[in-house]
Amino acid sequence: MTITIAVDSMGGDHGLPVTVPATFEFLRRDPGCSIVLVGNEELLTSAVAKSGNSFGERLKIRNASEVVTMEDAVATALRTKKDSSMRVAINLVKEGTAHAAVSAGNTGALMAISRFVLKTLPGIERPAIATILPTIKGHCYVLDLGANVDCTPEHLLQFGIMGSQLVSTLEHMDKPSVGLLNIGEEDIKGNEIVRRAGDLLKASDLNFYGSVEGNDIFKGTTDVVVCDGFVGNVVLKASEGLASMLVAGLREEFKRNLLTKLMALLSRPVLNAFKSRFDHRSYNGASLLGLKGIVIKSHGSADAYSFCCALEKAAQEARNNLPEKIASRMVKFV
Amino acid sequence: MTITIAVDSMGGDHGLPVTVPATFEFLRRDPGCSIVLVGNEELLTSAVAKSGNSFGERLKIRNASEVVTMEDAVATALRTKKDSSMRVAINLVKEGTAHAAVSAGNTGALMAISRFVLKTLPGIERPAIATILPTIKGHCYVLDLGANVDCTPEHLLQFGIMGSQLVSTLEHMDKPSVGLLNIGEEDIKGNEIVRRAGDLLKASDLNFYGSVEGNDIFKGTTDVVVCDGFVGNVVLKASEGLASMLVAGLREEFKRNLLTKLMALLSRPVLNAFKSRFDHRSYNGASLLGLKGIVIKSHGSADAYSFCCALEKAAQEARNNLPEKIASRMVKFV
Repeated sequence: MTITIAVDSMGGDHGLPVTVPATFEFLRRDPGCSIVLVGNEELLTSAVAKSGNSFGERLKIRNASEVVTMEDAVATALRTKKDSSMRVAINLVKEGTAHAAVSAGNTGALMAISRFVLKTLPGIERPAIATILPTIKGHCYVLDLGANVDCTPEHLLQFGIMGSQLVSTLEHMDKPSVGLLNIGEEDIKGNEIVRRAGDLLKASDLNFYGSVEGNDIFKGTTDVVVCDGFVGNVVLKASEGLASMLVAGLREEFKRNLLTKLMALLSRPVLNAFKSRFDHRSYNGASLLGLKGIVIKSHGSADAYSFCCALEKAAQEARNNLPEKIASRMVKFV
Repeated sequence: MTITIAVDSMGGDHGLPVTVPATFEFLRRDPGCSIVLVGNEELLTSAVAKSGNSFGERLKIRNASEVVTMEDAVATALRTKKDSSMRVAINLVKEGTAHAAVSAGNTGALMAISRFVLKTLPGIERPAIATILPTIKGHCYVLDLGANVDCTPEHLLQFGIMGSQLVSTLEHMDKPSVGLLNIGEEDIKGNEIVRRAGDLLKASDLNFYGSVEGNDIFKGTTDVVVCDGFVGNVVLKASEGLASMLVAGLREEFKRNLLTKLMALLSRPVLNAFKSRFDHRSYNGASLLGLKGIVIKSHGSADAYSFCCALEKAAQEARNNLPEKIASRMVKFV
């Protein structure tokens, strides 16, 4: 079966200059996939022609007259921009023309439109955003990352089920371990909601490890880490900020004078190996889980390499029927 | 005026082998200070004798027959270990013999005992734990880091006032900027408590910057970042975990083979400069704020250098009468 992915070609900080080359690279790498580029037809036709299209029927263009900007209020994006490239891409998933949609646009708008158009799976009260983070052992999946701020214990349980299924599906693991993000001080351990979520997770059929702390994320203590969207978003952004600071600091030290610049030159192979090992670009592509359809959010500032990674994630979820698998896990809760 | 610091010499992962050398180093560096080492008198007398005590009246030993362990429940530490080195050190602050207490022991127990013995300042409902984190520009102060899990908007306002006064006092800044940790997605911006805390902070006389996101901590966007103890603890531990992972990863790449080991040798001056710039050891010493007395929590695994930094922080807060300054800021709320 050919997997078709609808791409919001206008979204993100860069739009076509990233999404078109990424599409070409992706189609070259994965002959079992086709792409529908959604956006301004004129611009797209010209960009695709310039790139030397040789993909025939595997690459289509679908016009959309509007664009959701990073500044658009979610309500504006949802109610007034009904012909946005984001909305049309998600419509293609809804109507069955595409198996998945990928966008680098406004996260809030993407979640709201996806939820409105696709609806949530039976038993899922709130969709969640899951991403992969590098660990000292490999990587882990963390959710939620900002779709849900005030979570009930039941929501956190649902995140655990969705995260577990995501890892089972993408990594072909039988029983991924699930940790609940908490704090360690014994008498002040967690708040009431986290405590009750722990009870629900313990009683579930998940491979529940128990509470994990912030440092366990990067230690790779569990395959999945569950938290509410406020905590998840803060941790993700703080980690990005810390990594940027350390990289900038290392660069500064290596640029201090001629001698240190020479050292940088000599150490380049090591520094490059280090860089590619923890390269956040290859982790690009957060999954919007719990919807009746596959939607992947790319980082807004993604480059073509990074956007292509998000397309690959969409193809992988589509090939493995992730939404149906989550739905089947939820049957007993419905 | 000589500043006297009571040291819980038995606390932390290492006890005397760290606290005694750190005390000696501190007394050498700061002639205006004296120390009371609290713990097992016999062990302390022998350790101090071995180190070649030359500080006369500036170094005293005070016996305490018990030790709070990392595994002790807070209730046990508080109710049954009334002659612990931690408790006796804090008692010395209460009775005016010492100006500050420093411990590397169990955080939960330290907070509970400090609160029970010293009591909170008028107008402060909950003490908070504040620490300093490196930023690309210098450093910032973050609180709370785990003392308070379920916070009201009023608690967050009090954290803002205490954090602002901490920075004013330690850094001699007139109006430190204060940010409220939040998430950026516009429609799902923060939860109700954070929203209301923002209103209170805006209406206060603080130099309130507004909401900041996780990455702003390490960008150094504001001098103070306020959050509840759950989020603060998770962010702090995740940051420690990420930094450890990156350092371990860099070390692994430099150790891969003979050639890379040679590169490491050549680049050592740069790597050392990088390391010392972001050395978490020099940031050791979290302040327990809002109490009628000064208590500093050292990292449990601190080495002597690092523990000495915590002693210096205690001396600095004592010299600047931090608790009285916080109390005077709270007068209008009482």
